[in-house]
Amino acid sequence: MQLPRASGIVTLLTDFGTADPYVGVMKGMLLTAMPKAVLVDLCHEVPAQDVALGAFFLRSAVGRFPAGTVHVAVVDPGVGTARRILCAYAAGSFWLGPDNGVLGSVLPAPGEGDVRVVDVESLGLQAKSRTFHGRDIFAPVAGWLAGGRFGFEALGGRCGDPVRVADLGGGPRRVIHVDRYGNLITNIRGSELTMASAVLAKGRRIPVAGSYGDVAAHSLLAVVDSYDLVEIAENQGSAAATLGMRRGDQVAIEEPQS
Amino acid sequence: MQLPRASGIVTLLTDFGTADPYVGVMKGMLLTAMPKAVLVDLCHEVPAQDVALGAFFLRSAVGRFPAGTVHVAVVDPGVGTARRILCAYAAGSFWLGPDNGVLGSVLPAPGEGDVRVVDVESLGLQAKSRTFHGRDIFAPVAGWLAGGRFGFEALGGRCGDPVRVADLGGGPRRVIHVDRYGNLITNIRGSELTMASAVLAKGRRIPVAGSYGDVAAHSLLAVVDSYDLVEIAENQGSAAATLGMRRGDQVAIEEPQS
Amino acid sequence: MQLPRASGIVTLLTDFGTADPYVGVMKGMLLTAMPKAVLVDLCHEVPAQDVALGAFFLRSAVGRFPAGTVHVAVVDPGVGTARRILCAYAAGSFWLGPDNGVLGSVLPAPGEGDVRVVDVESLGLQAKSRTFHGRDIFAPVAGWLAGGRFGFEALGGRCGDPVRVADLGGGPRRVIHVDRYGNLITNIRGSELTMASAVLAKGRRIPVAGSYGDVAAHSLLAVVDSYDLVEIAENQGSAAATLGMRRGDQVAIEEPQS
Repeated sequence: MQLPRASGIVTLLTDFGTADPYVGVMKGMLLTAMPKAVLVDLCHEVPAQDVALGAFFLRSAVGRFPAGTVHVAVVDPGVGTARRILCAYAAGSFWLGPDNGVLGSVLPAPGEGDVRVVDVESLGLQAKSRTFHGRDIFAPVAGWLAGGRFGFEALGGRCGDPVRVADLGGGPRRVIHVDRYGNLITNIRGSELTMASAVLAKGRRIPVAGSYGDVAAHSLLAVVDSYDLVEIAENQGSAAATLGMRRGDQVAIEEPQS
Repeated sequence: MQLPRASGIVTLLTDFGTADPYVGVMKGMLLTAMPKAVLVDLCHEVPAQDVALGAFFLRSAVGRFPAGTVHVAVVDPGVGTARRILCAYAAGSFWLGPDNGVLGSVLPAPGEGDVRVVDVESLGLQAKSRTFHGRDIFAPVAGWLAGGRFGFEALGGRCGDPVRVADLGGGPRRVIHVDRYGNLITNIRGSELTMASAVLAKGRRIPVAGSYGDVAAHSLLAVVDSYDLVEIAENQGSAAATLGMRRGDQVAIEEPQS
Repeated sequence: MQLPRASGIVTLLTDFGTADPYVGVMKGMLLTAMPKAVLVDLCHEVPAQDVALGAFFLRSAVGRFPAGTVHVAVVDPGVGTARRILCAYAAGSFWLGPDNGVLGSVLPAPGEGDVRVVDVESLGLQAKSRTFHGRDIFAPVAGWLAGGRFGFEALGGRCGDPVRVADLGGGPRRVIHVDRYGNLITNIRGSELTMASAVLAKGRRIPVAGSYGDVAAHSLLAVVDSYDLVEIAENQGSAAATLGMRRGDQVAIEEPQS
């Protein structure tokens, strides 16, 4: 497998939030390892320890960054324990994170691609804390990979059994995320909506439209969104507030009448 | 008109918030279009769809960045509809956003400057979604402009009728924004305060002072702030909380007695 | 004293929050002063005017960034008054901030190191506002220092009496910060815990463990954290919520029984 040269870009996805200096300190260690790294925040507001939502967010980066980008995902309730650290090569990028499913949405299919167990000791690393491996381990590894000090294959041996997350996409049709606008993002794929003209939620029939502005202000609509998923939205309003709905609530596709 | 060379800096003003990966993904597309772009967050906490406040915030960037900076403003309730996308050249910088007034505070005066309607198709762009043009259109256009792939004049034909926002500065004297500190920013220009020694709000007389620390701790003051507007503040406290005031509430200048 | 060459990296610690464009505008002025500066947000969610917590956060950057980094701390309730502006050289880095204690955690010990009073006028600066020196003064000074326009010693004369903050580490044993996860960070140093097997809080005995995952999910533990301080945490939960504790609440070390 021919790997791309590292782009020098490192993205960060964490559940650190922004109320503490955790992200900033992690960036300092990244720049110490790779002074020319270009750092991009993918998102730091993953709810604490929400591995599944972290994986969902991480997938949104696929194909959106230059080839050879290093994506680091630190949603890591097992920090400081024996859980492994993985680095996957997939979709032209490198994906670094704990082996708890947070990489599940971007892992190569079984038998394809290349996943490594990062051999922290042989890289010369020793965690200074047992609570902040983002700073002590993930940052230097990402910086070294982005800067070429270590190639992907030097990170450690192959991993045949990475933890695959319970995909948010599976299971009954439901809301999997409520975004900043109060849009209700469901696990219904856009392609499932082709024949339907409405989505059902909270006993209401919500018509399919092409974009928010295609319905009147403060009207509800179902739209295929930027995740390629069906989203219940309100034009210039919050569908979550109007419908009183939240993550986990069930939705359905209105079957077309023949 | 002699345009400056692009500085390579791109600023982002959006209503995306930070709880989702929307800003991060947009940055990925920017770096894909222009790998050396220097990205700066102007603000992402514009309240959802609040075009007028977005325009107010955008104005704060005027004159504060190197010449040739590309400023992108995505507060875009009409995303995916036929609303146009504009790029203006004004005050030494480029300003890219939807034609809904969010650029209103930085548009050149009628007859002056240069505003273009971005010709998305002729730039070779096709939006992959109808809900996220920040990612699909604004990011590549900004990256190409910042990187010199397209010059400003190649973005599209001239626009003679851009939407101009209802300026937050107009209308009755009132609070137009409450900032993080609970400072009440009004639409009274600093120059209007020259002769006055107090501002009136909620039945109280609030004395003019030069800076927060010029009054006792937890005392109210009226001060000309960094927007060059009159702001009602509380030294080491929140004027909004103390006065129970919010955006839209009326204020007045105490006329000097002759 | 041999000073390191500036790394070109500038970190920002403020109480500006992210709901306003204040941080973005400050970055514009930094890039105007030093177009190649690499800007890193250390944290902007210091509670408004909380100088002591700002100092605590600032210390977390010590040793985590390349030598020659310029760290700017703007928690500045006295903005626009006669309070001085200081720049310290310590621990291989430059530390710029108001003389109110926010630099207290990183200042060199009395008689050691080098602290300067920034001579704003002789640097050619004139504040355009009396409320936003982050934009008008701190940003250009930091940019010039990071870019080499002025060396550290050219910033102004030596300061023999910088304000030293009441260290959050002093005083009775208590919670000094609650972080994003609801971890209760105390002022007990990690080394004080060596002999103890539990911490006492709210009448409960909380056992010492090495890492979050060393106890059962939703169990409490006391752990030496990444600040090298003792933290009361809940594995996969919020200790602050479970214990109903907050900043300032007292804690104690359970003395080992001999």
